[in-house]
Amino acid sequence: MTFTCPAPIPAKDTVLLGHGSGGQLSAELLRDIFLPAFANPVLSRLEDQAVLEVAGARLAFTTDSFVVKPLFFRGGDIGSLAVHGTVNDLAMGGARPLALSAAFILEEGFPLADLRRIAESMAQAAARAGVAVVTGDTKVVERGSGDGVYINTAGIGIVADGLDLSAAHARPGDAVVLSGAIGDHGAAILTEREGLSLEGDLRSDSAPLNGLVEAILAVTHEVRAMRDPTRGGLAGTLNEIAAQSRVGIALRETAIPLHAGVRGACEILGLDPLYVANEGKMVAIVAPECADAVVAAMRRHPLGAEAAVIGAVTAGHPGLVTLRTAFGTTRIVDMLAGDQLPRIC
Amino acid sequence: MTFTCPAPIPAKDTVLLGHGSGGQLSAELLRDIFLPAFANPVLSRLEDQAVLEVAGARLAFTTDSFVVKPLFFRGGDIGSLAVHGTVNDLAMGGARPLALSAAFILEEGFPLADLRRIAESMAQAAARAGVAVVTGDTKVVERGSGDGVYINTAGIGIVADGLDLSAAHARPGDAVVLSGAIGDHGAAILTEREGLSLEGDLRSDSAPLNGLVEAILAVTHEVRAMRDPTRGGLAGTLNEIAAQSRVGIALRETAIPLHAGVRGACEILGLDPLYVANEGKMVAIVAPECADAVVAAMRRHPLGAEAAVIGAVTAGHPGLVTLRTAFGTTRIVDMLAGDQLPRIC
Repeated sequence: MTFTCPAPIPAKDTVLLGHGSGGQLSAELLRDIFLPAFANPVLSRLEDQAVLEVAGARLAFTTDSFVVKPLFFRGGDIGSLAVHGTVNDLAMGGARPLALSAAFILEEGFPLADLRRIAESMAQAAARAGVAVVTGDTKVVERGSGDGVYINTAGIGIVADGLDLSAAHARPGDAVVLSGAIGDHGAAILTEREGLSLEGDLRSDSAPLNGLVEAILAVTHEVRAMRDPTRGGLAGTLNEIAAQSRVGIALRETAIPLHAGVRGACEILGLDPLYVANEGKMVAIVAPECADAVVAAMRRHPLGAEAAVIGAVTAGHPGLVTLRTAFGTTRIVDMLAGDQLPRIC
Repeated sequence: MTFTCPAPIPAKDTVLLGHGSGGQLSAELLRDIFLPAFANPVLSRLEDQAVLEVAGARLAFTTDSFVVKPLFFRGGDIGSLAVHGTVNDLAMGGARPLALSAAFILEEGFPLADLRRIAESMAQAAARAGVAVVTGDTKVVERGSGDGVYINTAGIGIVADGLDLSAAHARPGDAVVLSGAIGDHGAAILTEREGLSLEGDLRSDSAPLNGLVEAILAVTHEVRAMRDPTRGGLAGTLNEIAAQSRVGIALRETAIPLHAGVRGACEILGLDPLYVANEGKMVAIVAPECADAVVAAMRRHPLGAEAAVIGAVTAGHPGLVTLRTAFGTTRIVDMLAGDQLPRIC
């Protein structure tokens, strides 16, 4: 009997950090493994939430796991983030959140005091968003097999009547509306992780967007798509919309709000804020005649005070996002292959 | 400026493996941390699924994370287990499963071939249960911060009309019906993990129970409670029902089916099969006059061929589960504080 020493598996045949980035590697994993296995028309729509007919109503259903590092950061923690993330995925589908689940994977030795603090933060975030945590689960893994705590939240909600939202619905001429400054969450996490102390009040924008969505839908239902630019940032989100709608998107750099602290952090760390994650911002693609009304409605809401039209959907260069820079040049804003920042949410 | 060396946190103030056991420590975590934080009437019912009124229908909603080790085992893998676990939590609430979510936490370096195998197994399990995976998420953590793959599934379903199931609804005189032999899943996992090779075909019973539930509900709706005895085993599940219904439960050991391989494994490993996890068995508490019909309906189904009445609900010794042994003595079947077997699901 002989034993053969198994050859190591080449890195290209294993999971890479970039597979969790929300960029091209994530898209490949979906295309090559998950979509072929789970093939069904709801999943294949590739929205941030599934929408199902239930008892005559349109039910939205979504899930997200959270592995953010560090667990506590300026502007939030893994608990509030886990609530906001799922509330926002429902809200981006035009759904009023009804209920959340919360499932914890805890590492042996994790301080119960920290777990209590996280649970309380989740509860506060849920109360602020007007949604209850109605079911849950806890698993424990041995010391060294986890990283303190991982949280999954799933959520259900009811989609408002008369809405037909999809990342595939953008049309040439539509306006691209952004609810506020970009990159706050990612920049806050990264400076915290790197131990940088920068000037200014750099903090995560983690927040529930369902109230802001209600404010928009109160003025118009002529919204084609709504997305929260989390992993992959504004660039990732707009590339997805451009690809799925087979349209171009032309942005104006000077119109995109950016806080000074984030600008500074990105300069020091060599990051492009267009790719940095947000957890309390949204993009709406709206009919051109409704753009001013949507911006005005956003600005009346505390989470949309810096809302602006940042560009337009074009018939030219379908699938591409371009940026007219402050210098007057135009560049392509591509989708990143992997990650600028792993474990941002 | 002086620095104080922080004292280590006493183990009692940290997460222990037993907190994930489904036993007393799990109950304490729920009582001391999660219930106070998330206080709401749906969660406080402590069922395996939340039931919400949506558009006039009763919607069941549940979540579970899976951290089973090893990932592949005789009779299943983490993928099929993740589907069955959530399908079964819905089915135990009398709900027809509508849709599942699937969220993956992958460790950097995990072989993509294994991920594909797991995804395909999930898809097959979902097809067998007649339910679609409609939404998902993938996160990646660095090498050493996870354990290959953790999966969360959440599920939604519609509760059949005319049912009023609850672990608090058992009444003295009710029959305790078990769908088949106990301990198969836990014994299979543990022998695999310990590298034991035992005689007989020891394999997990992991299976979707929604078809079996449909078979029961076709003959009667006089069912008080249904539960799948997973973590904590049959003993854990019946202790929960006894506590929540404030009744006693008297079991007859000779009536409880047990496969020879599981009996052998438990003897070698020093385990009590009453506490060993099942992933394809259910307990139904039913009105006494319906017991025979429920057993007959179960036996006509492939997953209920060994169904039997294993005991009765009593007015005496409320909150306690007792077992009349094969020797004719009676002993108390208590709830375990911690775990016999960590990471069984």
